[in-house]
Order: sequence, then C-alpha cells, then structure tokens
Amino acid sequence: MGESAAGLTASPPPSLPISLLSPPAVPMELHVENREKLLRALRDHLAAASRPIRGLILLQGGEEQNRYCTDHAELFRQESYFAYLFGVREPGFYGSIDVASGQSTLFVPRLPADYSVWLGEIKPLSFFQERYMVNMVYYVDEIAQGLNDSCKQLRKPLLFLLHGLNTDSNNFSKPATFKEIEKFETDLCTVHPILTECRVFKSEKELELIQYANDVSSEAHVEVMRRIRAGMKEYQLESIFLHHIYMYGGCRHCSYTCICATGENSAILHYGHAAAPNDRILKEGDMALFDMGAEYNFYGSDITCSFPVSGKFTNDQAAIYNAVLQAHDVVISLMSPGVSWIDMHKLAERTILESLKRVGILVGDVNEMMASRLGAVFMPHGLGHLLGIDTHDPGGYAKGLERPKEPGLNCLRTVRDLKEGMVITVEPGCYFIEALLNPALEDLVKSKFLKREELGRFKNFGGVRIESDVVVTSNGCKNLTNVPRQTWEIEAVMAGEPWPLNLKQPPSCPA
Amino acid sequence: MGESAAGLTASPPPSLPISLLSPPAVPMELHVENREKLLRALRDHLAAASRPIRGLILLQGGEEQNRYCTDHAELFRQESYFAYLFGVREPGFYGSIDVASGQSTLFVPRLPADYSVWLGEIKPLSFFQERYMVNMVYYVDEIAQGLNDSCKQLRKPLLFLLHGLNTDSNNFSKPATFKEIEKFETDLCTVHPILTECRVFKSEKELELIQYANDVSSEAHVEVMRRIRAGMKEYQLESIFLHHIYMYGGCRHCSYTCICATGENSAILHYGHAAAPNDRILKEGDMALFDMGAEYNFYGSDITCSFPVSGKFTNDQAAIYNAVLQAHDVVISLMSPGVSWIDMHKLAERTILESLKRVGILVGDVNEMMASRLGAVFMPHGLGHLLGIDTHDPGGYAKGLERPKEPGLNCLRTVRDLKEGMVITVEPGCYFIEALLNPALEDLVKSKFLKREELGRFKNFGGVRIESDVVVTSNGCKNLTNVPRQTWEIEAVMAGEPWPLNLKQPPSCPA
Repeated sequence: MGESAAGLTASPPPSLPISLLSPPAVPMELHVENREKLLRALRDHLAAASRPIRGLILLQGGEEQNRYCTDHAELFRQESYFAYLFGVREPGFYGSIDVASGQSTLFVPRLPADYSVWLGEIKPLSFFQERYMVNMVYYVDEIAQGLNDSCKQLRKPLLFLLHGLNTDSNNFSKPATFKEIEKFETDLCTVHPILTECRVFKSEKELELIQYANDVSSEAHVEVMRRIRAGMKEYQLESIFLHHIYMYGGCRHCSYTCICATGENSAILHYGHAAAPNDRILKEGDMALFDMGAEYNFYGSDITCSFPVSGKFTNDQAAIYNAVLQAHDVVISLMSPGVSWIDMHKLAERTILESLKRVGILVGDVNEMMASRLGAVFMPHGLGHLLGIDTHDPGGYAKGLERPKEPGLNCLRTVRDLKEGMVITVEPGCYFIEALLNPALEDLVKSKFLKREELGRFKNFGGVRIESDVVVTSNGCKNLTNVPRQTWEIEAVMAGEPWPLNLKQPPSCPA
Repeated sequence: MGESAAGLTASPPPSLPISLLSPPAVPMELHVENREKLLRALRDHLAAASRPIRGLILLQGGEEQNRYCTDHAELFRQESYFAYLFGVREPGFYGSIDVASGQSTLFVPRLPADYSVWLGEIKPLSFFQERYMVNMVYYVDEIAQGLNDSCKQLRKPLLFLLHGLNTDSNNFSKPATFKEIEKFETDLCTVHPILTECRVFKSEKELELIQYANDVSSEAHVEVMRRIRAGMKEYQLESIFLHHIYMYGGCRHCSYTCICATGENSAILHYGHAAAPNDRILKEGDMALFDMGAEYNFYGSDITCSFPVSGKFTNDQAAIYNAVLQAHDVVISLMSPGVSWIDMHKLAERTILESLKRVGILVGDVNEMMASRLGAVFMPHGLGHLLGIDTHDPGGYAKGLERPKEPGLNCLRTVRDLKEGMVITVEPGCYFIEALLNPALEDLVKSKFLKREELGRFKNFGGVRIESDVVVTSNGCKNLTNVPRQTWEIEAVMAGEPWPLNLKQPPSCPA
C-alpha cells in the first residue's frame, strides 16, 4: 500500500529526532560479579551447613535448535542461568566455577574446519578467555580432564549441578551432563535455590542494563503512540516497535512476543501469539493495549501502554484508564523494603474497585467486594513479577512461600516482601472479559455489586493495563520506565509533542 | 542517536512511495489441493504395488516450545509437512486423510477454560472445520475414536505415518504418536517419499505465494540498498528489511536468519547467527552481501543482493560482481525441463573461472581448472536448492540419487534434473576465503592457476553472491525475484531512482 493508504506515515514529524539511544558496550565485569556473588552465597551456605568449601559449580549452556527435522536453525538465545554467570552469546558451551579458589573455566565447543567457511572465523581458546573474563578455557571434549585439573585434590570431585523448579512454567532446569560424568560426585539440590536467590537482587551493572532496555522500549512505545492510526493492522505497530528497538537500540531480541491488542482483543491478557497474531484492523474508537519490551545483553524490560487509537480519550476510556493509573501510582508511591507484595496486589484491586464504583459500574461496600474476590473479575492476573534475564524472572516463590489459593492472588508470580535490589513489574489492569463477567453476574454474592446496564456499555471495550518496571531502593523505589502516563501527556504526545513534554503540567482546560 | 548521526535517514526520498505491497488473503484451497495431490500419488503408488487402497494418513502438527525451563513461549511456527497439508497456524493439532474416501479430519487441542482469559476466544470445532476446509473435526483427546470412526471397516486400521530423512539436516521427521496408537497398524515407510515428492512440484496457488514472498523481499532489498550508508551497523540493515516485510508485507517470519555481511564478513556463507550477529560497522569501501527472505503463509523466499556500500562499484568490485552476475544470468537463460542441475553448477563455476582469468586473478586452461575442482575454492557451496515451505525444501535427493563426492559438488542440496514446477534458487557466488585460498596456494595442482599477487588485492574483499528464486516452466523458467541486478541499475537505485527504473538501459557514459 502507498503512503496515502491507511494513514501510514513513514516517520515522526521531521522536527523531532528519531532516537536519542546509543547502545552501550556490553560490560563483561557484570558476569564476573555475578559469579563472585554466587560464590559468596554458596560458601556461606556450605559453611552454615558445616559442609566442606570445595567442589565445582558446573552449568551447561544452551544448544542451537533446528526447526523440527529441517536444517532451519532458530536464532540462538543463551539459557538464562548460564547467561547470568558467564554472559556467553554462543551455543554449545559449559562453564564451571571452583568453589574453593573461585577460578572460573569455560568449555568451548571444538568447531569443524568448514565452520570457518560457513559460519565464521574459528576463534582460539584465548579469545573466549579474554572476552568472557574467565581464568581458564578448554574444549568441551576435554571437559572431564578440565574439571579434574581444576579440582585435583579429590579422588572423585564434587560437581554442583543446576536442578530445580521454575515456579512460572512448572518445568525443571536441566542439569549439565557430559560423557564420563559418572566419574564425579554430583549434587543436584544445593545450587539452584542459591543461584536463583542471587538473581533476585540486581547489581548496579545489572540495573544499568535493565534501565537501558527500559529506555529503548520506552522510546519505542512513544514512537508507536505517535504513528498509530485507525485502519492500520495491529502487527504494523509491532513492526514499528521491533524496528525501533533494533535499529536504534541494538536489541535483536524482545523479552517476549509483542502483545499488540486493540478493541476487544485488549481483554486477552497474552494476545499476540501464533493463534492470535496481532492481525486485527484498528478502529477509531478502540483502546489499544501494547505490552512490549526489548532485551539487551540478556536483560529485559516489560512495559505496557494503553491509549485510545484516536489520540483522544472518551469519558469512558479516561475513567477506566485513570482507575488503573491510580492503582499503578499508589502502589509505586508505597513500594519500599519490607512491603508485602500481596498487600500491594490487594491495594491495586481495592483502588480499581473504588474507581469502578465512582464510575457507576459497581455498587455497594468495597470491603465486601474485596472479601468476595470481585477484584479478580476485573484484574485476573497478578500485580507484577520479578524481571531480569527472564521476563518472569525466577525466585518469586523462595523456599517456604506457598501460592495463595484465592482467585486473583493465585496468579501472583511472587508473594515475597519487597527488598532492596528487586526489580518488579507494576502492572495493574482492568478488563471486561465475558468469560469472567458472565459467571460473576450469575454469582449470588458478586452479582449484587455489578450494575448490569452500565456494564453493558463496556462489552467490547477490552481492557487497560499500565505496566512499569520498578526497582526497590533502600528507602523506596525507582520507576525505570519513562513513557507518557497521564491522559493529557498521552494526548499531547499522540498529537506530536516531544517526549518528555516541554510543558510540565496539563494545559488548562478550554473555557 | 539522532537523525544526523551515522547518515541515518528515516525514510526513502519523499517522492517515492514506501511500498506497493498488499498482503493477499490466505488461500486455504491451496492446502486442499495439496491433500488431493498426495491422495492421488499415494493411491497410484499403492495400486502399482498391488496394495489395498485404504488406511489413514496421519500427521502430527508442531507444539509450542518454551525456552529452556522457563515459561517464555517461542513464537510458534507450524511444522512444514503439516503446514503443507493442512495450513494450520495453531500448535497442538493432528490431521488425517482417509486414503479410500479422501475425507480429511483435524484433531483440535481441547483448551482449558482459562485460555479465554489469557490467550483468546476458545473457538468451536466448527470454526476450524470451516477455516481449514476439512471434512471432520474432533478433539485431540478423541483421536483414537475419531480415527476409528473414519475407518470403521477395519478391525485394526492402518495408519500411514510420516518418517523419513531430511537430506539437508540429516535428521528424521518425527512420526505422529498418541495414546492408544498400539491399537492401529502403522506404516512408516510409504508416505514420506511420496509426500516429499509432492512438495517438490509447486501448484499455481503455491507459486502465487512464493511470488508474493519474492515481491515483498525484493521491495525490502531495494529499501535496504537505498538506505545503506557507511557508519551504520550491519544489523540496522537487517532491521530495515524486517520492518519492511512486516509493516508493508504482513510477513512476521523470515525464511531464515538474515545474513547481513559487509567487508570481509561477506566471505562467511551463513553469517548473521548468534555467534556472528551482524554487528560490524560499515565502511565506505565495503562490499555488502545481504541474503534475506520473507515468508508468507508458510511459503518462503530466499534472495541475495550484493552491492558496494558506497553506492558506486570500484573496478575490482564490478569485475567480481559481473563474474557472478554472468554465471547467474547464463544459468537462468538455460534452465528448462530436462536440464541437469549438476551441469548448471559446473557451468556457473566455469563462467566464474573464465571471468577471474580475464580479471587476471587466474591463469591457465579453464578445463584444467575445472578438472582440479578449483571452482570450489571460489564457490564452496552448491548453485542452489529447492525452495518452498522450507528454505531448503526437501526432495533434493529423491530415491536413487547420491550425493557427489567432489569438492563443491558435494555441497549441492539437489542433483536432480529440472522439471516443470520446481522452484529452485540460482545463487552463484565468488568469495575470497583464506581458509580455502591458503590450502589452494599450497596445492601442487591448484596453485599454478592462482596469481598470488593479484589475489593479495582481494584479501579483505569478502565475496559476492547473487541469488534469485526461479520456477521451471514447461519450456524454460521464470525468475520470481525482481531486484536491480546490473551494476548500473544498482547504482541508479542507490542514488535515489525508483525501482523498476524509468530508464530501461544504462545511461550513456559521460564524454
């Protein structure tokens, strides 16, 4: 289609710069620090358990995967625990850390001679030693020898392998395996919870990358807001986002498949996958809900913006949007070490229910609504999740924590109390989902709060989600996401104003 | 970085339309025809073998994959044989075809109730029956019953399962499996070669999609040519390509990971993967080799353009480029049913060697060069491969064909004689690869053809590849790819001329 079709424009207004991003150098010291942190934690654990401070932590990196039986190679992305400790971008590696000495070793796949013709220069071992800042390097086919060399004091050295449950997927991580592993003692229990706990608390260097991923994604979200027009397809906004993060941000991967939901699709929490592939045509009256995040050197971002396709909020759109924004803002205003995440979730629910009562969709006592778990009808997901190398970063249910059973709360990906260094998404939402509203309207307790007629007006509204990435600091928190959030900010940016706005408060209402 | 940095421009010259593409409706009849074609071929085969015309062809579609132990879902892409027969875009399906009646059945995964909240509307069986134009639909958990219903004449119905070697990956396709499969007879040998052979010959409807994928990719390659500048990163051109095919072409998938190679990287045949991620900064004197193709409704394209980053060919660049272009053109001029693909490969080699001799890099008798397999030093890959739902489409080595042993020829992905309906890439190349040139310079036979001093000039040249997608017709062939190929066409487009050019012949040389 040509320039005139479907309101497509090629670029932002010429007065605005395309991008202020500049991809930073990848800081390999970050991964050195991650290894040191694990070592400290593991040694403390062993000492506390009166176990000897010795053995080798051994992790196996990811392998390149072919698509089904073909030779189509999927673009490789490193396994996250391995990425955390070693920062290796190539497939087929192993890595070990000696618990006693702290020495780190990489095992590099030996490449066939014709690799240099097809896939690139075959780098010497020293290249990887230098790039990844490890003490030693061997080939993978020397792994048994290499591990023995690092650990020669023992007849049968102990390997700490990674094995444990991911509480979001219910899958177990795969412990390293190699020929002759039977010549070693193995421990499958110790490392996973300790390493997972290390990942929960972000270092300064990790925060810088998560901030950069947020900067990239924030700018790309603003670009999407500027260019959205009725008549476009949802996937065209996905394309604009992907292009912006790669072209200007250097981000080849997203943290997750883009959710570009408009109209009624914005009530589908994880829209955008292959069976619902962002292919609807936008209408002028739609709300858009775009949940998209870039990843840079393994570290991700996870941002949702909701706004009207038209560029101007209707009264109903503003009412629902502001209900969610208030929940988002009040949670962030209260986040600090020691705060319970379950309390924050309930606070978000309560804030939204109070707003819906003001709007006239709900009637009755908000405490009773809370007791009936009415909040989960409008926000059926958890308030947020840990974020890092994985979008749903592990560690949400540390040892001893149990998943709640109540509707809504049972979807929380973490129920921890907040601590300094955690990065967590704050993503309240309010959706009009038939599959939840219809049973609620039939429910003896819940139905009495619902004003059926008013609700009818929101049948095809979809939903609103507002999601920011927030780091808990020593005395509060910091929002890493920087996108227009107030309705007047969104309207100004969509009308062509720069972001951040030059004006710092809402324009006065016309007389 | 801002607009002024690194020569980035936001858009093509305003006088040119951004795109003339318009994503066509997905023609489900294409897959109905594919099923009918398989049925005809299988019935003929069974009849010729005096076997009964009965049983059920059963294929299992692909499953969505999580990344390692996490809940990160990779974007699903259907398994290619299943896509060919059923066109299903969703994961978790099975499909069967009754050999006697021709009746087709889809088995649809039964989704949990909360799917509608998280992933989208749960469609009734009738939705899939209609969309995918099959005769019957069941849930996957009813598969044993459903297969029995379609085949009730037999006590233990026969299932034809898909099991066979992919000659590019050396992997085997995975035959369908399900609970209670032991209640059926299974045949693992019959369907794979027959179905693979069906895929080799494209129908009109398949050709239309491959043509569209070519149109999308051709336009995107031209956009890349227009916007390339020294100072950019290779991946920025990848980003421009990806954005163009998705934004304007509706193509969410590429046929393969983009190869955006410049300078010496253009001598790495499959550059661009995670360990060589298109991250070099372009220099003014570089040659660029961009091998990128869009996929639409499973059908792919595979196009390579080579051109100077500066927009103007130097003498050396033009000499190597024209050596490859001549090979590309002469092969296409001769392709028609009955022509041997090995002969075409050798013709391309000979054409390039003759040019290199004219350029002064080689000396001696070209027949002797051919006998010494010198061609494989400069073109170490095959001339081309079948193209369709897979980039390296299966069927290149039909029963009885053996892979040649000689250097270069041993890389051919097919050695078949051409037949009407085959789509095959024509992709001659000429590369200066140290890992191949150094041994050749040491080789008693090959070294006498090589002019060491002249070769030295090309040390960091990289390489040139020119790749088009060509369909064999009843009396010749048709090139589906439409990009500037003559050096003067490339220079004109890079200087801002529209494509196709308004002028139809080279501008006359300045006096």
